Amino acid sequence: MGLLAAGIGAGIVAVGAGIGIGMIGRSSVESIARQPEASGDIRGAMILTAALIEGVALIGAIVCILLALGIGQ
Amino acid sequence: MGLLAAGIGAGIVAVGAGIGIGMIGRSSVESIARQPEASGDIRGAMILTAALIEGVALIGAIVCILLALGIGQ
Amino acid sequence: MGLLAAGIGAGIVAVGAGIGIGMIGRSSVESIARQPEASGDIRGAMILTAALIEGVALIGAIVCILLALGIGQ
Repeated sequence: MGLLAAGIGAGIVAVGAGIGIGMIGRSSVESIARQPEASGDIRGAMILTAALIEGVALIGAIVCILLALGIGQ
Repeated sequence: MGLLAAGIGAGIVAVGAGIGIGMIGRSSVESIARQPEASGDIRGAMILTAALIEGVALIGAIVCILLALGIGQ
Repeated sequence: MGLLAAGIGAGIVAVGAGIGIGMIGRSSVESIARQPEASGDIRGAMILTAALIEGVALIGAIVCILLALGIGQ
């Protein structure tokens, strides 16, 4: 049961991070194309929000690694 | 049963954080591109709301780690 | 069964908080970009509504922690 959870969970974690960081990256490149002189501020906001999503996704991936290795069973 | 919950829960937590912080980051970079002189206020609102989502997501991740390690069973 | 509920519940709590606070943050930064001189009022309304969502989400997270630790069984 833990192995099933590890696989499904890792997949859903990747979907969440992909949707979130994908939205940020898409709008970032469009915004830089619209206002190239503001690329520094845009890059700062992009990195900060993407890193927050990455943090949650990495913890989710660690949970799935714990499950896949059978630690805690 | 707790292991299955840990994997699926970690995935759904990542989806929630990804959608929420992704929406904030997307609009933040677009707003900075539209009003580069207001980037300070925009960054402040962005960090505050993203941190609130991050707080709930981290608590959810802690619940999933408790379940994956079998604490409380 | 309580453990399964803890994991899935924590995930759904994070999805709810993410969608809710994400919508608030998205519109807040867009509104600040449209009217930078009203950023104080916008920030006040943003913090108030986001804190209300955060309050409900934290109570939901506490319920999930109680379930994960087996308190009450």
